[in-house]
Amino acid sequence: RCHQRSTAMLDISFPPFCAFLGSLGLLCVALVGAWCQLWRGGFSLDGGPRTFNWHPVLMVTGLVVLYGAGEHRESWESRHGPFLTFFPLTAALVYRVPNTWSGPKLPWKLLHGGLALGAFILTVLGLVAVFCFHNSNGTPNMYSLHSWMGLGTVLLFSCQWAAGFGAFLLPWAPAWLRQLYKPIHIFFGSTILMLSVASCVSGINEKLFFSLKNGTMQYKLLPAEAVFANTLGILILLFGVLVVGALARPSWKRPDSDSLDSRQ
Amino acid sequence: RCHQRSTAMLDISFPPFCAFLGSLGLLCVALVGAWCQLWRGGFSLDGGPRTFNWHPVLMVTGLVVLYGAGEHRESWESRHGPFLTFFPLTAALVYRVPNTWSGPKLPWKLLHGGLALGAFILTVLGLVAVFCFHNSNGTPNMYSLHSWMGLGTVLLFSCQWAAGFGAFLLPWAPAWLRQLYKPIHIFFGSTILMLSVASCVSGINEKLFFSLKNGTMQYKLLPAEAVFANTLGILILLFGVLVVGALARPSWKRPDSDSLDSRQ
Repeated sequence: RCHQRSTAMLDISFPPFCAFLGSLGLLCVALVGAWCQLWRGGFSLDGGPRTFNWHPVLMVTGLVVLYGAGEHRESWESRHGPFLTFFPLTAALVYRVPNTWSGPKLPWKLLHGGLALGAFILTVLGLVAVFCFHNSNGTPNMYSLHSWMGLGTVLLFSCQWAAGFGAFLLPWAPAWLRQLYKPIHIFFGSTILMLSVASCVSGINEKLFFSLKNGTMQYKLLPAEAVFANTLGILILLFGVLVVGALARPSWKRPDSDSLDSRQ
Repeated sequence: RCHQRSTAMLDISFPPFCAFLGSLGLLCVALVGAWCQLWRGGFSLDGGPRTFNWHPVLMVTGLVVLYGAGEHRESWESRHGPFLTFFPLTAALVYRVPNTWSGPKLPWKLLHGGLALGAFILTVLGLVAVFCFHNSNGTPNMYSLHSWMGLGTVLLFSCQWAAGFGAFLLPWAPAWLRQLYKPIHIFFGSTILMLSVASCVSGINEKLFFSLKNGTMQYKLLPAEAVFANTLGILILLFGVLVVGALARPSWKRPDSDSLDSRQ
């Protein structure tokens, strides 16, 4: 009795949690855009610093927020049925799906794979932005720990997407392969998000040291831009921790599919 | 049949995994020590850069490796019984414990709390090292995203230790409180490790930008020190991912304790 009561006290309702997570993700995207617009000169495609500014915006949007949204949808929406979601495109798709988590799994798989593909495309564009900026300024690529970790994360993500497509969406993939690969795919799903968040945070830290080094605008004097971007980093960490924590929450997982379902 | 076969193929034996994790943790400690010794001038207590060098060594040792060791012991050793562990001090303690995971839980709790306390003490000393270095050089404290994230992690860690001590080790803590707090403690256990790893990685990145900026030794030219420390960062990430992943592995968790056990 005691145990049930104390467990019930901890039960978090899924829709408000998801609304909070969605708002937090949108806030992160808005703040990284505002940082680049207000303090770093905005955006362009000329190969200069304003081309670089696409890098943080695309990485936070793709590799963290949209990726995280795809992850938490796969685990929970399939169980809890559709409701208003925070990406208009996704919300539209969600309303196409039968209103029950005991229904067919294929639409959810397609949504998950589609969101991940969208996240991957934004991520690759984010890489293009920084390589383009480096190349037109004669700066070497791939020397910092941030770049090693970030590129490693993107490579893992590409393997994850290709293997997930091959194992779960190609209709001729054998059931034993799906069952063997599923826990690996789930493990790397959370791992890639953790690595993405660590990459973003080290990238923001690095960018602030690059940008804030003159006179009264030094990073160590904590000007407004530094407080703003540090806060952005903390919010990205919070988003990542909440998504990884929610993915690990047993009561929010889709009940294990039977063999018919996994063959679908 | 197919499902059982494919699941069996993924079964990782615990002792070799633990040996690998232990070696990886020791390697991280050795590499961070070697980095500070070989390239950053070694260690001292004079308030100069050699005082700072205690900071990365103590943080990697305490907040990542010893902390991670304590985490994975709590979840697994209690189930799998004692065996040779990688910290001599701990190995000694482990051999005092009855050779079965169905035995009393209290010794494991004391080991877990003791390892965490050791990790916390090293962490606080690591903070003392960097504050001492900043203060004797007139550098402001707590301005970078690395420092915000790192101090936040240590504050969470101190709350985690105090709340864990109060709820699980004080004999008069009520059972309902333990049951209510246990999932929160487990969630923050993994979260703090993720934040520690992200803090370490951003700190290594930041330190390399500070240190490697002259002539042929610039970070962007990727001298030997940069390759060495970048590799250290990647190994720390690997250690963190493996510990967090192993903590989430259902088959390695201690079977849920009955109410008698949780009152112990």
